[in-house]
Amino acid sequence: MSEADELARRAAGHLNAREGTSRAFGIALDEARAGYARASMTVRADMLNGHAIGHGGMIFLLADTAFAYACNSRNVNTLAQQASIVFLAPAKEGDRLVAEAREQSLSGRSGVYLVRVRTQEGKDIAVFTGLSRSVGGAVVD
Amino acid sequence: MSEADELARRAAGHLNAREGTSRAFGIALDEARAGYARASMTVRADMLNGHAIGHGGMIFLLADTAFAYACNSRNVNTLAQQASIVFLAPAKEGDRLVAEAREQSLSGRSGVYLVRVRTQEGKDIAVFTGLSRSVGGAVVD
Amino acid sequence: MSEADELARRAAGHLNAREGTSRAFGIALDEARAGYARASMTVRADMLNGHAIGHGGMIFLLADTAFAYACNSRNVNTLAQQASIVFLAPAKEGDRLVAEAREQSLSGRSGVYLVRVRTQEGKDIAVFTGLSRSVGGAVVD
Amino acid sequence: MSEADELARRAAGHLNAREGTSRAFGIALDEARAGYARASMTVRADMLNGHAIGHGGMIFLLADTAFAYACNSRNVNTLAQQASIVFLAPAKEGDRLVAEAREQSLSGRSGVYLVRVRTQEGKDIAVFTGLSRSVGGAVVD
Repeated sequence: MSEADELARRAAGHLNAREGTSRAFGIALDEARAGYARASMTVRADMLNGHAIGHGGMIFLLADTAFAYACNSRNVNTLAQQASIVFLAPAKEGDRLVAEAREQSLSGRSGVYLVRVRTQEGKDIAVFTGLSRSVGGAVVD
Repeated sequence: MSEADELARRAAGHLNAREGTSRAFGIALDEARAGYARASMTVRADMLNGHAIGHGGMIFLLADTAFAYACNSRNVNTLAQQASIVFLAPAKEGDRLVAEAREQSLSGRSGVYLVRVRTQEGKDIAVFTGLSRSVGGAVVD
Repeated sequence: MSEADELARRAAGHLNAREGTSRAFGIALDEARAGYARASMTVRADMLNGHAIGHGGMIFLLADTAFAYACNSRNVNTLAQQASIVFLAPAKEGDRLVAEAREQSLSGRSGVYLVRVRTQEGKDIAVFTGLSRSVGGAVVD
Repeated sequence: MSEADELARRAAGHLNAREGTSRAFGIALDEARAGYARASMTVRADMLNGHAIGHGGMIFLLADTAFAYACNSRNVNTLAQQASIVFLAPAKEGDRLVAEAREQSLSGRSGVYLVRVRTQEGKDIAVFTGLSRSVGGAVVD
């Protein structure tokens, strides 16, 4: 593992360990490299909306979490400034959702990341794009 | 209260009562009218991200919930197809967030809604835009 | 007219006069106030796409132009950082399109603007949301 | 060249030849394959905004054009329903901009495409995401 990837893994692990949300929702950090992260979560009954399918907000939250791991992967504190999501198919209770975030551009303090959310079987659930802005300071020592 | 507003209130109440997320996160439906809804939620420790501020995914979820109440307010089952959010300021633990959704357009099966998320004191936290698509069938009898 | 509105009018007029695009496409600045602008354009044959309807890019350009007038209305040089658009109905050759931009939030250097594009008859064509960032310096002396 | 790619090339060529915008702005269709397209355009004086840089609307238009070629590449008439763009760096007069559109998902009638706009030298100018909806009928016979 390269030094850059090792740092990405430590920064993402730090965020994952401190997030109230990851504990509350059982979000696993599956992999992190420089400019890349993968996270997964199982859709539970308390994540369903009033139509009895996975709440779009929970799908966004998983994508946003993978985005955070990827945009903080260079160990500079970085926040989401804007995000856009397209919902392609409903997620069902029990589905294991996998979110993969990939850096598309990093220009000065701004970064753009594409996150694909799929079921474990590979069905497309959502596509997310995030704009990040670094605010300075290290994520981990 | 007009008949249209009464129907909106019943449809939103139905969704709010059935959502796993609203129970899990203490999301209150404060008001619903035809093409409008307001919902609120207090930021808890388990809603914080790895930077110790309100997780963007939780802010999105609240906005998306108000959007769902507003776009189902005419009692036709309607789903989110796409959404975009701008994060303007961090939310802190204990903040009471209020999301107000207003219909901007309803053309055939497509609707566009603007949702503003503010603290109870009126500070802007996020602005959300949602594109909905009606799928038919009534929300409540 | 208030001083703030008069400054908005001058800043927008300055931009409109210098834009190559407004001359090329006949974009009229109809009104500008602090945090608000309205601009209009007629759909010409050279603005049609391969399906013979108004090109989405031209509709975006009109909305983006009204957004620029509104976000520069306080006479601080301000650029678009991100934008999102929903296309609701096709525009036809000869349609006079009117774009109205309204400020939704202004927090530090970031602003959010909603732009509605309609035909002169009031039919919804598109809804646009823009995120701006001020870069400093005055638009007009 | 596969049959699918040959069809993509014919459909994109048909659109490019019929577009008023491509003629007006000198947009070249550089390549089209199933789910992919590349188009380019040189920034002219009449494409500058009031800050004397390439108008965001023109950059969007180029991206949207590549998106149209890619989402019609399977020879089913398909329209843009929503799009989101992040502007990363200003384009200057004389810059040759290249937009590359790649399909991310195709689920039923909905498709998601990522378009990257760069200068010929490879500098990132913008990242665009588009949601398409097929409306039926063939683009070319």
